[in-house]
Amino acid sequence: MSTKKQLKLGAFLPGSGHHLAAWRHPNAQADGGLNFQHYKRLAQTAERGKFDMVFLADGVAVRERGPGKEALSRTTVVHFEPLTLLSALSVVTEHIGLTATVSTTYNEPYHLARKFASLDHLSGGRAGWNLVTSATEVEAKNFNRDRHMEHTLRYERAKEFVDVVTKLWDSWEDDAFLRDKESGIYFDRDKLHIPDHKGEHFSVKGPLNVARPVQGYPVIIQAGSSEDGKNLAAQTAEVIFTAQQTLEEAQAFYTDVKSRLTQYGRSPDSLKIMPGIFPVIGKTEQEAKDKFEQLQELIDPHVGLGLLGGMIGGFDLSNYPIDGPLPELPETNGGKSRQKLLTDLARRENLTIRQLYLSIAGARGHRQTVGTPEQIADLLEDWFVNGGADGFNIMPPYLPGGLDDFVNLVIPELQRRGLFRTEYEGQTLRENLGLPRPVNQFSSRAGSPELVTVGAST
Amino acid sequence: MSTKKQLKLGAFLPGSGHHLAAWRHPNAQADGGLNFQHYKRLAQTAERGKFDMVFLADGVAVRERGPGKEALSRTTVVHFEPLTLLSALSVVTEHIGLTATVSTTYNEPYHLARKFASLDHLSGGRAGWNLVTSATEVEAKNFNRDRHMEHTLRYERAKEFVDVVTKLWDSWEDDAFLRDKESGIYFDRDKLHIPDHKGEHFSVKGPLNVARPVQGYPVIIQAGSSEDGKNLAAQTAEVIFTAQQTLEEAQAFYTDVKSRLTQYGRSPDSLKIMPGIFPVIGKTEQEAKDKFEQLQELIDPHVGLGLLGGMIGGFDLSNYPIDGPLPELPETNGGKSRQKLLTDLARRENLTIRQLYLSIAGARGHRQTVGTPEQIADLLEDWFVNGGADGFNIMPPYLPGGLDDFVNLVIPELQRRGLFRTEYEGQTLRENLGLPRPVNQFSSRAGSPELVTVGAST
Repeated sequence: MSTKKQLKLGAFLPGSGHHLAAWRHPNAQADGGLNFQHYKRLAQTAERGKFDMVFLADGVAVRERGPGKEALSRTTVVHFEPLTLLSALSVVTEHIGLTATVSTTYNEPYHLARKFASLDHLSGGRAGWNLVTSATEVEAKNFNRDRHMEHTLRYERAKEFVDVVTKLWDSWEDDAFLRDKESGIYFDRDKLHIPDHKGEHFSVKGPLNVARPVQGYPVIIQAGSSEDGKNLAAQTAEVIFTAQQTLEEAQAFYTDVKSRLTQYGRSPDSLKIMPGIFPVIGKTEQEAKDKFEQLQELIDPHVGLGLLGGMIGGFDLSNYPIDGPLPELPETNGGKSRQKLLTDLARRENLTIRQLYLSIAGARGHRQTVGTPEQIADLLEDWFVNGGADGFNIMPPYLPGGLDDFVNLVIPELQRRGLFRTEYEGQTLRENLGLPRPVNQFSSRAGSPELVTVGAST
Repeated sequence: MSTKKQLKLGAFLPGSGHHLAAWRHPNAQADGGLNFQHYKRLAQTAERGKFDMVFLADGVAVRERGPGKEALSRTTVVHFEPLTLLSALSVVTEHIGLTATVSTTYNEPYHLARKFASLDHLSGGRAGWNLVTSATEVEAKNFNRDRHMEHTLRYERAKEFVDVVTKLWDSWEDDAFLRDKESGIYFDRDKLHIPDHKGEHFSVKGPLNVARPVQGYPVIIQAGSSEDGKNLAAQTAEVIFTAQQTLEEAQAFYTDVKSRLTQYGRSPDSLKIMPGIFPVIGKTEQEAKDKFEQLQELIDPHVGLGLLGGMIGGFDLSNYPIDGPLPELPETNGGKSRQKLLTDLARRENLTIRQLYLSIAGARGHRQTVGTPEQIADLLEDWFVNGGADGFNIMPPYLPGGLDDFVNLVIPELQRRGLFRTEYEGQTLRENLGLPRPVNQFSSRAGSPELVTVGAST
């Protein structure tokens, strides 16, 4: 095994792929979001590529696709609920981590702690939870509310939510269960700890009716980049997925977040920063460009306008000439900074409406890279060795083809350079990521603020 | 295929089995509740036996085991969360239904509709939902409450919950998704129906972000036997699990519930009544009796007293001589009728405290039967042909051994008599149970109150 520090990889797998027109691509599975055989193949391909984890995004509503009615019926709108899908995938994979987004806003800590603990036991320690808050009106309206919860309140709730969930995971010590048929003793009463949490947002007694997860806690992931988000991550996250456009931006984010860890007594290594990368791969640069162009041409203008209209604050652009300039926009209530970013970009580069939506249709804020396997490996190496990233969340443009390309062409190149594993180091996701296994906060050994590191078993 | 009417079978599978001391039995898996290989084997065994479905009970807390601290540490207290477990089992089975309890009291309809729809897609139409309300204080305390919700309110909430869930399942018509790569149209806008439910307990806009379930709706199961429970079942349930001691009681329940169906425009066949049966099987009657005795001897007195104490209203019996009579009991707040039932039984049969708990330790109110395969088949046939049951929910005393016995010894006897299938009739749980596939309430065909019956495809 190489002693060189190696990067970590997530495979971010929406049903048909990340590009706005992915489902229309000839190598994409149009019904991928609800096709288990497709997901089974994806997860097994990612495992063949030695990815650390599969990652699934989620939301508790059909996402809006901008103003107007035309865009929605031209986009993928239905998909598996992630915890059920990951549970099924646990049976057809052996090594790869199984991670998904679940919101803290419209869930209860007891349900969430239970489901992730259950997945962790089903998979032998491969579960991971991407903690988010829900910030859209369409989600609020599915949960007895007219509008979404205010930002600060959402984050306060999220922070307490994690406290409760980790207490529930610690209800039982790792060796609480004796199951001694002879004496009839099922568990050691001294190793049961009833959380009895009473806080601002939650009152949860416990204990959990699932044993402590195999990993102690499933790996905790976050993606917030607001101040509240970064602070919550510095306290509780072990992986951050983030969108960064340039090495300089990535370095700034990396330094910022890592420096926040010390105030919580955490080492820089205990949090892995993984920017999203949208790779379009060709055997030659020209082939890659042609592939990207093919995808761009599949974008229906209604869908492009819907995406752009949504990102500039819900403004309907369908009455403006698509090959003309972006009009002056009214003030928006939400997403001011994103509106300004896009307006500035359009003015600076003199883009038409169509050119503007094409420029964001691939990776939507994540780093896009179109080139040969060597060129893409160069980019990943550059960011990794220069303090911009601990690894990457790979966002294939279309699926399954885009993941096949990455595993067949880019992974071997990263391995040749010694930048990526050729075999899994450990049994659990936590071990593969090189993260410490949390000590039970209620056990007698838990006095020290340091976490006990469980070495990867190789 | 036989044209004789045949009975339906559920396999009710708690981790180690149903008997109070199951986990201590030499043929029981003591860690069964959290052992996926064990559950995989159980589900495959039940499928080999052509069972209609696997059934999992559930609660959102560690169950109380009566007053005092001694009983809890001697009983199984942890197990998989059922939806994650069933999703994993969907991958290792092909025909058998996958059904589980989820409470309407501490859940949200959007989450529940999504998860069961997702499981139904993962399994190709094999999901079933056992609708319950949560009635214990230990559950309330895990969800920000001091005490459980009042009975009538729970049932009002449950009724509205089902309304919302079925509306969400009907968000998309069966053929809504065109996924036409050429035209770029993903779904037919005329076949999307936004529920926009606003009621007493829930305000849920929708649509669901999962396509309509393969079965239209997953099969809806209930187990309530109160007046509220029976009325809710008559309106919404397709299967009822029930506890009946004698043929006469079973017939009375059967007639009562079936007669309630007509006022909701439903046919008697659209609801299957399946009492629980706890079978202890021996090749001879003596072998069966010895097997049962072996289980009874494994009951730790603390656990027996805990069970009995809980069932008579939370009264601590540990200070009374275990081989003496049941003392006079104080009035209880809850479960008055159960307290009276047990007190009467003890007086009538002159039972000691130990004898009383032994009498309920096996099936806890369900019908217990100890005998040869022929004797057990006789019982099932008697209840089935004489209007006491449409089928049975089989509760093996210990697992895996008790299920193996039933599949190897009783199923062939039922098949010889023409009472049970030798091959699955349909592709989905609904088809195997002979239940109609619900028409989408929002589609143009849905004007008639009659449900369209989709024939089993054989």
